[in-house]
Amino acid sequence: MNKRGRLIVLSGPSGAGKSTVVFKAVEGRDDVCFSTSVTTRKPRPSEVDGREYFFVEPDRFKEMVANGELLEHAEYVANSYGTPRAYVESKLNEGLNVLLDIEVQGARQVNQSMPEAVKIFIIPPSMEELKRRLQGRGTDTERAIEARLIRAKQEYAEADFYDYILVNDDADRAAAELSAIITAENCRAFLRENLLKQEQD
Amino acid sequence: MNKRGRLIVLSGPSGAGKSTVVFKAVEGRDDVCFSTSVTTRKPRPSEVDGREYFFVEPDRFKEMVANGELLEHAEYVANSYGTPRAYVESKLNEGLNVLLDIEVQGARQVNQSMPEAVKIFIIPPSMEELKRRLQGRGTDTERAIEARLIRAKQEYAEADFYDYILVNDDADRAAAELSAIITAENCRAFLRENLLKQEQD
Repeated sequence: MNKRGRLIVLSGPSGAGKSTVVFKAVEGRDDVCFSTSVTTRKPRPSEVDGREYFFVEPDRFKEMVANGELLEHAEYVANSYGTPRAYVESKLNEGLNVLLDIEVQGARQVNQSMPEAVKIFIIPPSMEELKRRLQGRGTDTERAIEARLIRAKQEYAEADFYDYILVNDDADRAAAELSAIITAENCRAFLRENLLKQEQD
Repeated sequence: MNKRGRLIVLSGPSGAGKSTVVFKAVEGRDDVCFSTSVTTRKPRPSEVDGREYFFVEPDRFKEMVANGELLEHAEYVANSYGTPRAYVESKLNEGLNVLLDIEVQGARQVNQSMPEAVKIFIIPPSMEELKRRLQGRGTDTERAIEARLIRAKQEYAEADFYDYILVNDDADRAAAELSAIITAENCRAFLRENLLKQEQD
């Protein structure tokens, strides 16, 4: 129907179950793809350029930042990561909705570089439940879990620019809501104004 | 999840198949109801006050207009019709999404009296197809059909404030989109900000 898809930005605290919700939501949809990031990290043996990441040298990354070729970028453990605008644009122009799973600060950058992006914040039912889930994973020390909870509260305080909030108390319902948002956002009037204009002549 | 539902305003040219789409969309949903209008028209024998309409005397209707008790109102064939704000509010506060099927001018009034209402414009795939559908119904003269088409074009020109446009080329798909919009609009961040705020203390 539409010529162009939507960029769907997904954020939420670690342990909220975001990945589960996202994979359930896109199951069976052929109008959705995931974004591929650019990184300065070296590829692992199993990784293919353009599949897991676009691998670039630090100088090229700096150039991309300077030229505004990235919708957002950040540093992790001495490596740089970013979202390439041209890649996202090409997918959108194929009519695909592009999913981008990033932290709040990156999402804020996307909100500035592409304001029409749909911003969705996925949260657990409560901080107590988040703590239980993090403890249940058994991968973090108590101290690491406390740090994650503090980080989650910081993210909540910074998450004032999201369009939607999904509460992951039931992954199936939250996934159905995410899928509904993707469908609904493809029916936005500004995408289809031409359908009204072309009939007025 | 939410304490309050959304007001969903639906408009579209006569013959676009709006009713079919709407009834398919709400089938099986228990979170949706239809608004009930106020009218000065006399009840027919089968009609019950508060079911088909709220029946009021013309003086009471004028008072309701003067007091801002109506979200929108209009005249048809010497009778007045309007949407009672208090009734809609009570349903919204029960957590129900309230559907309101009205013309573009009424929708524009609702947009002013309740800007957070979700405005959806439902159109046929083309004016040619609208003409074919109107001819197929066999209820209008050629002259009446021409008048409807002119009216539809006028509505298109005035429909610049809608949030969503649905194209009814396939009633099942359009109904799924309408249902998705209702679901998505219940996940709006401004409805759930308190979930973030209560965790920041």
